[in-house]
Amino acid sequence: MPDLYDVAAIGNAIVDVIAPASDAFLQAEGLEKGAMMLVDPAQAESLYSRMAGAVEASGGSAANTIAGVASLGGRGAYMGKVADDQLGQVFAHDMRAIGAFYGTAPLLGGLATARSMINVTPDGERTMCTFLGASTQLGPDDVDPALIESAKILYLEGYLFDPHEARRAFAKAAGLARASGRKIALTLSDAFVVERHRTALLEFVETQVDIVFANESELCALFETSDFDQALAALVSRPLVAAVTRSERGSVVAQAGASHVVDAFPVEKVVDTTGAGDQYAAGFLHALAQGRPLPVCGRLGSLAAAEVISHYGPRPQVSLKDLAASKGL
Amino acid sequence: MPDLYDVAAIGNAIVDVIAPASDAFLQAEGLEKGAMMLVDPAQAESLYSRMAGAVEASGGSAANTIAGVASLGGRGAYMGKVADDQLGQVFAHDMRAIGAFYGTAPLLGGLATARSMINVTPDGERTMCTFLGASTQLGPDDVDPALIESAKILYLEGYLFDPHEARRAFAKAAGLARASGRKIALTLSDAFVVERHRTALLEFVETQVDIVFANESELCALFETSDFDQALAALVSRPLVAAVTRSERGSVVAQAGASHVVDAFPVEKVVDTTGAGDQYAAGFLHALAQGRPLPVCGRLGSLAAAEVISHYGPRPQVSLKDLAASKGL
Repeated sequence: MPDLYDVAAIGNAIVDVIAPASDAFLQAEGLEKGAMMLVDPAQAESLYSRMAGAVEASGGSAANTIAGVASLGGRGAYMGKVADDQLGQVFAHDMRAIGAFYGTAPLLGGLATARSMINVTPDGERTMCTFLGASTQLGPDDVDPALIESAKILYLEGYLFDPHEARRAFAKAAGLARASGRKIALTLSDAFVVERHRTALLEFVETQVDIVFANESELCALFETSDFDQALAALVSRPLVAAVTRSERGSVVAQAGASHVVDAFPVEKVVDTTGAGDQYAAGFLHALAQGRPLPVCGRLGSLAAAEVISHYGPRPQVSLKDLAASKGL
Repeated sequence: MPDLYDVAAIGNAIVDVIAPASDAFLQAEGLEKGAMMLVDPAQAESLYSRMAGAVEASGGSAANTIAGVASLGGRGAYMGKVADDQLGQVFAHDMRAIGAFYGTAPLLGGLATARSMINVTPDGERTMCTFLGASTQLGPDDVDPALIESAKILYLEGYLFDPHEARRAFAKAAGLARASGRKIALTLSDAFVVERHRTALLEFVETQVDIVFANESELCALFETSDFDQALAALVSRPLVAAVTRSERGSVVAQAGASHVVDAFPVEKVVDTTGAGDQYAAGFLHALAQGRPLPVCGRLGSLAAAEVISHYGPRPQVSLKDLAASKGL
């Protein structure tokens, strides 16, 4: 198959509901700051009723990354399930409007489109409570072989280890990519996801993955250690590309034992960290698909992340392509 | 009745769909920059399919004003019609979350919740295409007499002159307010609205209104002149409070022949002017309800407007009460 896409991704298709919150609110609601927890419809409704006035914006980790790739001028394709409802229409519109391919059939007459209630504290940190809804109904039939076979890189989110059907979709997609000689990238997504599915994730990393994205806590959770250097060494010893993000301390990118420290781009004020990891992955994967050296991949990831944390919402508000050009990247 | 509310308002209950756009896009779509035009469902779908990736945020002119009053620490109540759909739930949540009273029954099984597609050009100017949907079904039965009789000021938006049933609701509300000795405030809303309903609006201003909000083009449209000073003189000669906004040139507030020029608050960068007039009205009405002098009312209006144009979306993102306190207002 020819290279029609730079990156094809599979993920939970989610609309974000983003509101300001105090640290006291998180505490009163029993929410672990910075984490993602899954909620059922009753918990979702209850939390929503106490949240502040919000804005809605299309989200979903891998979907945000594909939006970022498109904003960088890359060719992105996305697979993920929404319902045939207003928020599902919003999600589909936003994917296509940014220039990504999105063709997954919506779920008819079932669960509502997934929503993630994101409480943003004054320090910009985001804490997420996600109702997975229709996104859990993504199954192997939603995996389009033509998309995967024609994309340089298949990008998968660790969040997909939670819904059962999605894991089957995941396995099918990985098999197709492997069979077509495509690269497979994985983000660990969240430390609690790693704890819930450590064995399966490790097995997947060992046997299938070419490129791993993680932040410090996810990486430490994967290798059951609190020692970051030890966890990093464990990852880097494997024959893969590793990109480990460290918030304001930048990132470490590594391959075949050689690692590079990449600085974060300075940001005037961190408004909302939602989407930081997703946009880092977008910049990294876009540069990687173009055959750029790893430190440049990390640098473009940092730039995309810097843009997204300077405003509310998980996707770029400016053309990342123009932004990158203005920075000589 | 005791004063339970500072301001009770009636308006078109709308969710905004806000996206960046170029001037060329406005031109290609035949949209008049800065204006509000009404679209039918087919036009709405067609425009939406070409708009950029968007964020959704509760809007509606008078609803934004009530949200602003609540953010200032005032007691606000709102009447407006949404559908029993996801965007309707978003609208209701956001009104209550900011501390306003909102009790209008949603429309069941009919038109969808109103949406305004707002294209924001790089200069921050917003151009709106509104599908009125369920909001047109607001009728006299939705006007709660207890709310109007217990609010110091009834606030009405000129936009309500478009839907037929809403005008009957409007008349009922104004009658109730008048009978209870309450003040009636009106915003002219939009120059095209004024042109469509000039005679009815003038008649209403002459016979019922105590406080008029307008911008320059609306005022000139009302008095069929291109001479701002002449239009202003015509308004100020009437026995009412006038507050006329002039974008970056501030506003003019006047009563009984005496007028005051109020400067705009400086804004670092105008991001999105959506809600500027609505938040000006919020600050003005909140101060007026507290019996503050007119120039202070204008000053608080300017401050609230300055906050809202510095970010995407039509409602305050910070506590206007805290902001006002920090400015000694």
